[in-house]
Formats: sequence, C-alpha cells, structure tokens
Amino acid sequence: GTGADNDLYINQAIVFIEDAIQYRSINHRVDSKSLWLYRWYYSRTCQWILSLTITVILALAFIEKPSSLTVTSDVRYRLPAWNPPCGLTESIELLCFLVFVVDVSVKSYLIGWEEFWKNKWLMAYILTLVVSLTDWIVSLSFSCTEDVRIRRILRPFFLLQNSSMMKKTLKSINSTLPEMASVVLLLAVHLSLFTMFAMLLFARTRDGQQDKEWVVYFRNLPDALTSLLVLLTTANNPDVMIPAYSKNRAYSIFFILFTVLGNLFLMNLLTAIIYNQFRGYLLKSVQSSLFRRRLGIRAAFEVLSSLKETPANTQQSYVSIGALLQVLQKVEMDSRCKQAIMRSLKKCSSDQLSAVQFQKLFEELDKDAIKQHPPSPEYRSHFMQKMQFAFGHSYFGYLGNVVALANIISICVVLVMDADKQPSERDDFFLGAINCFFILYYLLEMLLKIIAMGFKRYLSYPSNRFDGLLTVILLVLEIATFAVYGFPHPGWRPEFMGLLSLWDMVRLVNMLIVFRFLRIIPNMKFMALVVTTLLDLVKNLRAFAGILVVVFYAFAITGIMLFKGAVVPLGNASVGPMNSWNTGQTTLMTLLENVNSWCSLVTLRVRLFTTYLLSVNLICRWAKIYFVAWWLISSVIWVNLFVALLLENFIHKWDRRCHREPLSDIEYQRTVELMFRDVLEEPTEEELMEKLHQHPHLQLCR
Amino acid sequence: GTGADNDLYINQAIVFIEDAIQYRSINHRVDSKSLWLYRWYYSRTCQWILSLTITVILALAFIEKPSSLTVTSDVRYRLPAWNPPCGLTESIELLCFLVFVVDVSVKSYLIGWEEFWKNKWLMAYILTLVVSLTDWIVSLSFSCTEDVRIRRILRPFFLLQNSSMMKKTLKSINSTLPEMASVVLLLAVHLSLFTMFAMLLFARTRDGQQDKEWVVYFRNLPDALTSLLVLLTTANNPDVMIPAYSKNRAYSIFFILFTVLGNLFLMNLLTAIIYNQFRGYLLKSVQSSLFRRRLGIRAAFEVLSSLKETPANTQQSYVSIGALLQVLQKVEMDSRCKQAIMRSLKKCSSDQLSAVQFQKLFEELDKDAIKQHPPSPEYRSHFMQKMQFAFGHSYFGYLGNVVALANIISICVVLVMDADKQPSERDDFFLGAINCFFILYYLLEMLLKIIAMGFKRYLSYPSNRFDGLLTVILLVLEIATFAVYGFPHPGWRPEFMGLLSLWDMVRLVNMLIVFRFLRIIPNMKFMALVVTTLLDLVKNLRAFAGILVVVFYAFAITGIMLFKGAVVPLGNASVGPMNSWNTGQTTLMTLLENVNSWCSLVTLRVRLFTTYLLSVNLICRWAKIYFVAWWLISSVIWVNLFVALLLENFIHKWDRRCHREPLSDIEYQRTVELMFRDVLEEPTEEELMEKLHQHPHLQLCR
Repeated sequence: GTGADNDLYINQAIVFIEDAIQYRSINHRVDSKSLWLYRWYYSRTCQWILSLTITVILALAFIEKPSSLTVTSDVRYRLPAWNPPCGLTESIELLCFLVFVVDVSVKSYLIGWEEFWKNKWLMAYILTLVVSLTDWIVSLSFSCTEDVRIRRILRPFFLLQNSSMMKKTLKSINSTLPEMASVVLLLAVHLSLFTMFAMLLFARTRDGQQDKEWVVYFRNLPDALTSLLVLLTTANNPDVMIPAYSKNRAYSIFFILFTVLGNLFLMNLLTAIIYNQFRGYLLKSVQSSLFRRRLGIRAAFEVLSSLKETPANTQQSYVSIGALLQVLQKVEMDSRCKQAIMRSLKKCSSDQLSAVQFQKLFEELDKDAIKQHPPSPEYRSHFMQKMQFAFGHSYFGYLGNVVALANIISICVVLVMDADKQPSERDDFFLGAINCFFILYYLLEMLLKIIAMGFKRYLSYPSNRFDGLLTVILLVLEIATFAVYGFPHPGWRPEFMGLLSLWDMVRLVNMLIVFRFLRIIPNMKFMALVVTTLLDLVKNLRAFAGILVVVFYAFAITGIMLFKGAVVPLGNASVGPMNSWNTGQTTLMTLLENVNSWCSLVTLRVRLFTTYLLSVNLICRWAKIYFVAWWLISSVIWVNLFVALLLENFIHKWDRRCHREPLSDIEYQRTVELMFRDVLEEPTEEELMEKLHQHPHLQLCR
Repeated sequence: GTGADNDLYINQAIVFIEDAIQYRSINHRVDSKSLWLYRWYYSRTCQWILSLTITVILALAFIEKPSSLTVTSDVRYRLPAWNPPCGLTESIELLCFLVFVVDVSVKSYLIGWEEFWKNKWLMAYILTLVVSLTDWIVSLSFSCTEDVRIRRILRPFFLLQNSSMMKKTLKSINSTLPEMASVVLLLAVHLSLFTMFAMLLFARTRDGQQDKEWVVYFRNLPDALTSLLVLLTTANNPDVMIPAYSKNRAYSIFFILFTVLGNLFLMNLLTAIIYNQFRGYLLKSVQSSLFRRRLGIRAAFEVLSSLKETPANTQQSYVSIGALLQVLQKVEMDSRCKQAIMRSLKKCSSDQLSAVQFQKLFEELDKDAIKQHPPSPEYRSHFMQKMQFAFGHSYFGYLGNVVALANIISICVVLVMDADKQPSERDDFFLGAINCFFILYYLLEMLLKIIAMGFKRYLSYPSNRFDGLLTVILLVLEIATFAVYGFPHPGWRPEFMGLLSLWDMVRLVNMLIVFRFLRIIPNMKFMALVVTTLLDLVKNLRAFAGILVVVFYAFAITGIMLFKGAVVPLGNASVGPMNSWNTGQTTLMTLLENVNSWCSLVTLRVRLFTTYLLSVNLICRWAKIYFVAWWLISSVIWVNLFVALLLENFIHKWDRRCHREPLSDIEYQRTVELMFRDVLEEPTEEELMEKLHQHPHLQLCR
C-alpha cells in the first residue's frame, strides 16, 4: 500500500540524514526491518556496548597470567601479582567473542551479500573470530596451561576494524609503504656496506693491545652490524668511536661519514618521503567526508521526493515541507542544528523544496557553533558598577597572572633553599604562610570575578572553569591542612598522619599551583597558536594513536610470550650501594620483565638493550630482531608520520593565521572540516546522482 | 672625445655582461679606471688569492699554541705537539690582514661612498680588521704569552663576509629567529615547569633508602634542570626514570608526559616552523639571481645603445651587431656559450638588435650544457661488430653488477669465517685467490667495454671513469702484491714488510671493491632519485655548511680558551684493563682536551658530558652553558634547517619526476636555476628600467 510505502520512504530519509550527520556510508539495506536493525545497531547503547567489549578484551592482558601489574617494577621487591583462577578470564573472553559474533553478523547482513564478498575487513573479522574461538577451546581443554595463545596477539584487530578512521589511515600508510621500503632498503645497503668496511678497517691485529675497537664493537659480523645499527639510533655515539679515535684521529672520518649519510641524509629522507605522501592526506579525507554528507542528504531528498506522484508539469523533483518536518522530528541530531533548520523551514515562502534548497537547509550542519557568552549582570548601585568595571577589566586578569608568577617564583625560592636540608631540619612555616596568602588571593580573585561577570558568564569561559576548579581544590586542601595541623607558625613541622602527610599535602598544593600557572598561555599570541595546533593535532591523531596502540599491543603480547621466564631475579643481595654492573642488570631485568607494561616499550631505546645485553650475553637472536623491529616501527616510522602530520597541520594553521589576522578570540571549537572549508570542493550534482544510482539496495524511480 | 666615450661604453658593457654571468650586482662605479680595478678585483687570480688568505688564516688555529693536532687523541700516549716560535704565526697573520685591508679598501672604493655608509657588512669588516690588528699588536708586545686572543674568535668573519650566498642565507635565518625564539621560550617554560614539578615530586623523604631518584637526578635546582634538559636530548632516557619507576610505576607518567610534550611536540614544532619559513627560500634566491642576470644584460644594452646617436625616427633604442661582437670578444665567459651567441648573431638578418632580441641572445647562458657522448667506433669486421653489440649492451653492465655483488658476498663470507681466528692461524690463500679472479674479471670487463665503446666514449660516462679508476688501482695493488709475495698458494701468510703489510694491502683492495659496488646505484630508479637529491642538496647546502663552519670555528676557539689546562692527564698508570670510571675519565679528558678538533664537537652529545661531568664534579657552570649552547645551535637549529632544505629539495624533485617521467638519463648537470625554470617569473621591462635608473653611478641618456 502507499501508506506503508510512505512510511518506508520516511524511515529511509531519517536514516540517510543520520548517515549524513555521522559521515557514514549509505550503502546498506533499506527495507523496513533492516532500517530498524540499522538504527538499533548504530544507536548509542549498542555502540557503547561494542566499545566497552573491545576495552574489556584488550584490558584482559593486564590481569592474565604472565602479567606484572604491580606498584613497583623491581623484581626484587615486588609481591607476586594476583593470579586469576582458570576460567575467569576465559569466560569474560567468551562473552566478548559472542558480542563480536553478533556484531559481525549484523554488519554483514546490513551491507548485503554482494557487498560482503567485496569487503575484506569483514572477512578478516570473521577469520579472526574463528581462530580466536578455536584457540579458546584449545586453551580450555588444556585447563589454561598451554604456553602459546594466538588469540591474544589477534585481539587488537577488534579495535582496528571498529574504527573507519583507523582503516582509512591504515590504507594511506599502506600506499606509502613502497617508498618507505625503498629508503629502508637503502638504509640496509648503507648499513651492510659500512659494516663490511668497518670489519676490514678494524680487523684483529697482531698487537693485542691495539685492537680495543675490534674486541668491543667489531668482533664478528653480528656484533659489527649491531654496533652500527645502534650508532644509527645515535645511542652509542660517541662511545663506539672512542677506542679507534684515541688510536688515530683519522678513524673518526669513518664514523662521521656513517652518521652524516645515515642519520642526517637517509633518516631525514624518510621524513621527506612520508611528508610528501601525506601532504594531501588530511584534505583528501575531509573531502571524502564532505562527499558522504552531501550524498546522504541527496539520498534523503530523492526518497522524499518519491513520496507523492510528481506533478506532471515539472522535470525537477520536489519535497514537501510537511514531509521534511515529519522526518526532522524523528532524526537524532544536535538540538541546536535541528532548531536552526526548523526556523529556516518556517521562513520558507513556498510549500515545496527543490534539491538545492534542501541541500542548503542542511548546511547548518557544517557551521560553527557560535558560542554566546551570557551577559554580565547589570548593577544599579554606582559602587557596584565601578567594581564591575574594575574587576571585569582585562588588567585584573593580568594582575592575576602576575600573582601566579610570583607564587611560582616563591615556591622555586623555597625549593632551592630547602634542597640540601635534611627533612628533619626543614621548617615549613614559610611555605605554609605564602601558600595561605596566595590561596586567599586566588579565592578573592574568583569571588570578585564572579561578582563582576555573574556566575553563568564566569563559567562560560574555559579558562575560568580551569581556574575556579583549581582554586576550590586548593581551598579544600588548605582548610583540611588547617583543621588537622592548625595554622602555620614558626617551627611548623610535617607529621605523618593518615593517608597524606602534611608535607605531601603541601607538595600537592604547590603542584596544583604550577598547573594553575598554565592559564597565562592563551594571553600570549604565539603560544596560543602553538597550543591550538597541538590540540588540533591531538584530534587528528586519534586514528594514528589507535594504530600505534594496535601495534604496541601486538608487540607487547609477543614480547611476553618470547621472554617469559627469560630473566630471573638475582636475589635480594644488593639492596645497599650497588655497583654499575648490578644496576645495569637490574635495569635490564626490570625492563624485560615488564615488557608488557606500557612504559617499558614507550621509553625503550635500543641502546640500553644492546649495551647491557651484549655485555651480559643473556639474549638470543630473537630478542635483537624483536627490538630492532620495534625501533623501526615506533621510533622511525611512527615518529615520521607524526612529524608529517604536524607539518601539515601547522602549515595550514599558519597560512590561515596570516589570512585572518583580525580574529580576536582563539577558536577552540574549530574542527578539521572547518579548517579546510575554503579549499574543499563541493561535489557536483552528476557525481552525487551517479553514486546514488550505484547504490546496491536503493532503487530510485527515475 | 667620442672615441674615449665609446671605449668607456664598450668597457661598461663588458663588465655588465660579466656581472650578469656571475649573478653579481651592477651597483658599482663605472668610470674607466674603476672598471679596470673592478675587472682586476674580480679576476680569477685576485679571488684565488683572497680565498687562499682566508683558508690560511683559518688553518692557523691548527698549529697555534693550544692546538693538539696529533695522531692519537689520548692524552696519556700522545707526544707534545709542535710549538711554533713566537712571531711565526703572527707574521703570517699580519700578511693576511694586509690582504684583507687591500680587499676592504678596493671594495669600499668600488661601491662608492654613498653606498658604503649603507653597507653594514663592509663597516663590520673594517671594525673586525681594526680590532684584530689592535689585538695583534697587544699580542706581540706581550711576546705571545697573553691568554685571551680575541682576534681568533673573529677569524671566521672573514669567511662569512666573502660569500654573498652565506650572507643571504644568514639574512633568511635571521628572519626566522623570532619564531624560533618563541618555540625556544616555550621549551624553556616547559622545562622549568616540569623541573619544579619534578622537585616537588621527587623530594627528599625521611626514608633514606627510598629517594634514589632524588639523590642522583633531582638533588637541587641545577641538577634537576640538567637532568630534564638531557632527557630532552633523549640521551639519559630511560636511565633517569628507572629509580622512580622501580619505586612506583606511576612515576613513569611524569617522564612520558615530559618526553611526549617536549620531544615529540615542541621539538618537531621547531622543524615545522623552520620548514614553513624556508619553504620559499630556494625559489626566492633563484628568482633574485635571475633578476640580477637580466639587469646586467639590460644595462649592457643601454650603454651600448648610447654608443651612436639614435636615429630620429625611432622611439626604441637599438644596438649595432658590430659593437656587440666587439664586446663579446673581450668578455670572459664559457667558450661554448660564447660560440653559440656568435652563431646566432651571424644568423641575424638585420644589422640592429632591439632590447628583446638582445635579451634573447643571452638566454643561451641559462641553458643546460647538453652533453654529447662521442660516437662508438665503427668496425668493419663482422666479428668485431658482434663483439661490439654484445659488450656494448646493457646486459653486459648488469652482468658486471652481478659479479661485483658476488665479490662482495665472497669477501663477507671470508670475513665471517676469519672473525674469531687468531692472526697467526689465518690463511689468506682463499681471499687472495678470489681477489685475483675478480680483479682479472674487472680488467677484462674494462678492456671489452673500451673495445666496444671506444676509449673516448668510455671515458665520457662518469660511472665508467669511476669503475676504470678503481680497476686500475686494484690491478696495481695486485701486481705489487704478487711482486713482493709471489702468487697465492695454500698456507700463504701475511708478513710485515715495508709500509703496508700484505694483510693491509688485501684489506685495502677489498675496501676498494666495496666502493666499486656503489656503481649499481644509478641502475636502480629510486636510488638514483635519492642520490641525485642528495647531490643537489650538497650543492645548495654550501652556504649552510659555510655558516656551520663559521659557528663551529668560533665555538671551538672559545672552547680552547675556556678549557685550556682544565684537564690534566692522570698519568700512565692504567694502560692495561681499565675499570669503567677510568674509561669515563679518559673519554672525558680526551674530549675536553680535543675540543678544538673537528671530531669532538661534531660527535658531541650532551649525554656524555653531563653523565661523566656531573659525577666527576670537574666542571664549572661555564662549560654547561657552553655545551648547551652548542647543542641548541648544532643539533637543534642546524639539523632542523637541514631537514627543511631537504624537504624543500626532495618535494620539488619528486614533483618534477612525476611530471617528466620519460627522461631516461639521470641529469647530473642540472643546476638549481634549471630546476625552478618552470616557476620562475621573468622580470618586466619596467622593473628593470626602474632599477637601472636607481643606479648610483650610471647616468642613462634617456
């Protein structure tokens, strides 16, 4: 019937508009039931459950068996980590897998069979699930005693496949790989040629005294290769050249040549290549988002226009305002945008909307949320008006910054004076007194500002919220201190009581004051530019960070499996003063043992490993390959990607700044889409219609 | 008289055209005597003498008193350096100063008084000379025993002022300084906030066992600042965080935050800023060179056109071909260009040249030197023709590459097998035999190629010259080996004889083979691109390298003055096995003692200094400031400048590669000017004439 048809069209329009808002593809099934499923699948609850499941399955590694999530990282002191009974983590895992099975089924159904066979991500998803479930069954049948658990390495895939941004970024990285591989190959050639050269140059001589260089760094091919590879990371520079250099200064030419060619030229060439490939990356991705949005809106228009029979006299199709209102009421979108669209709809003179007018209505979505600060209160009393003028003035803000600076300086002075005193000699009276004074000032400042601006206006500025929050916390801490220890007086001493000692409390207060000092940043023009660039970068980097997390997780799990039990504590013998070898040993143990903890890999430099490991002779070939791979991926490729993105972002921002100098406020709300608005190309009508006609499930009348 | 006038005009035209060829400014005196002086000053001999003088005065530092230019750098072993008698270096210096005095007088005279007062470089030149001469007199009156010699620090200025490229580059760097200063300020704020935070976080506790972090890294304000500064260079990462990390893993958050903000964001922001400023740098400099060339040509046209009275009927001015021929004969320029211009002059139909035709004639200067390889010999015999086809084919070249690769691999295998053998156990028969075989192959390859291509054609390819030279050297070495030791046989042993032992000789031969392997590079497309980019970069980097040399020289001399006598050798006690502290001590001594040698500063990393120096407690504040300044300038600013230039160069090159794929040969002869030809703007007639009318010495008739 036409009524059912009409309902279907309305529902389709709702979903298409929601797709447009979320920049989603519209290539999904469009029958009534599928639409209901689609809206359910993309509802907040469902997506939230999916995210939670991914978080849970990734977090499992922290409590699973070879984990070492304890407070201290020193193997000699730490208590054994909690060991969950067999079956606990496994059942949580099974629950997660079930959620993923539902997820993949719904997704596959919604895009339809034809599309499914083209979608490699979905196939990989199913494969991963099958392998994981098989591994899970094997694991249970061994009662959790088996060593190798493949499913753990596969876990980050679930994170990867759930984010379209990450998939897109991965595709971009993938297209850069051939060039990167060329440079890495060049690096390898460079390394191997210089290794051969070094082995010929620093060969063993008859005079045993003379060949220190040979003994330590170039004894055989793997040693020589490692020495030069580490030199490429600059970690053993200049140690590696010192023995040869003290024999004959001319040997330094070899090392300088190697460093200049390898570090200065080839490494930076990698940056250049990656930057060159990623120059258009941001723009292209924003452009395709725009296309998706326009396509969704256009699709909504097309289905709505087939609601009634088109009048015979027109070639163009129209949409009635009534139908659109009906759709708008059911669409889930930002209420501000919805109201703006409703308002412009009511202003419309005609009863019908053409495609262009329809598209124009939804341009509200692309617009900035212009933030209106609430007005200041209007006081009648002359005195209050004067106060309002004085404390609402920007000079009062500057005074606040000067006071914060003075506070920082005074803390600094106290720190320098107290640096070498024993804790028992320390007199906290002075620090307590100045803290008390400054906190009172901050409180006064906050109150005066609230009086001058009104509470709502005060809160509408993010800098004020930051200030106010810190001031309140400082006040509470200070009152707690007074309540417990009384007012500061000469000879005031820290005493250990309860959770935090007074000394800890005072330190905490002072750290917060250091934080509070950051409020001066928006007052300095260049700093504000830098900070907004960084904030933008953080937004754009989410996909990159996600991929890093994926790689990191896989590496960490592999590391755990490779090095489990490779290091045993040496006993608690050397708690007192330790010699350097022992320190090295401990460091090594610490790092290897905790290879699964975030920190170790993040701060890993090959230096530490090769220096200590080669001398202690503890490590097998695998570890070396593992660490070199990690260095290549994290330090070389990822850092270069980061630099490329930063360059891209900064240069765009800088160009904009030069064009639009007069903008007074810093625009915190700007999104990437808005940054590129001037250069984006609107898709043409033909492109949109061609894409619509290629839709696998939607049959358009015309 | 008109004859004298005509001679003057001809001379002016000659000088202007020479100015255009050398991209020099034309703003100099143009009377007869000055023109003679100008040509004399810019003659090859004069400029060569000036360069020699600069080299000599800079090289003096290597033989002057606190120099340590000895073979070994180890203070314990080395012999006292040669100490020149007082007056020797001083008299060389005086000679140099006299040359500079002549230089500055001629330069000042040639540009004229009015221009002189505007030229800050010349004033600085005179000031430097006055200070240097005063210092020289003081030095002689103390009979060379005085400690501080200011004139040494001033020496690099002579290098700086002699190169217009370097002056231009310095101006560019200067204009980037405000932005760089902002980021450095930001870094300083970052550093100081985190230092305060660290001192509050890692304060001394009552429990002496617990505060390892405090004792080692954050004892007082300077220590804490140094620790974090060194962390910014990543040199003490992760050592600095290990004590805190083993106490509580959460402390690592502090260090990760510091590193991410400082290293990843702020440091790379510096790269972005410098790249952003230098993006147009190359183009702008090439554009201004083009303007100078066009201006010189135009000036020559104008003076030649005023040779005769202009015909009354024309508004435009013309130059007669005869006058131009007269000028061309006296101009010093590339003979290929001169002949090309003569040839096109003879083709001219009219007797007169307009300004446009005149300009066009000299466009020959901008053109590439198209290199014609001589033709292959034509053989009559059928056999020789077949041979020519076979060995002139590119497959024969590939075969040569494969053989070179095989040679490299065989050397590698021998090296690996011999790695752990004692020198006395080593049998060099195998290595000798394969070397003999491969060298014979290389000789054969060279001869066959010469037969196929003819000697001249063979030599016209740079890759063949490289190959041939190495083959000849290898052959000579091999014959020398045979002459001394006979042919290789099993049990062949190295014996020490004469300058080089056999073993050394074989090593030398093998190193040359490693070099010879580099000939495969032009055969791989991407590698060829990379190598040409690097070669281009080296050309464009000369100015930057010059400035680095200037800064480096000043730093090295300051270092010598600051640390002279700061380190005394500890005696020859520990020649045998040394413990690590002693090694550190030696390294430290070595480095400090040799602060004037290139190598130390080039490979200097702050790590070594702070790690050893803080523990040995040897160093004063000045040294720290000195090294931090050197790190900032060499490692941070210069490396970023380099990266910016590399990005600029590579991206231009890459874009060109994409446009002009079909070019088969690698264009080694390309200059920067040619790289940018497509984007350069020709100066308009109005701009040229306006500039000409502003000439301080040239009065144009119209």
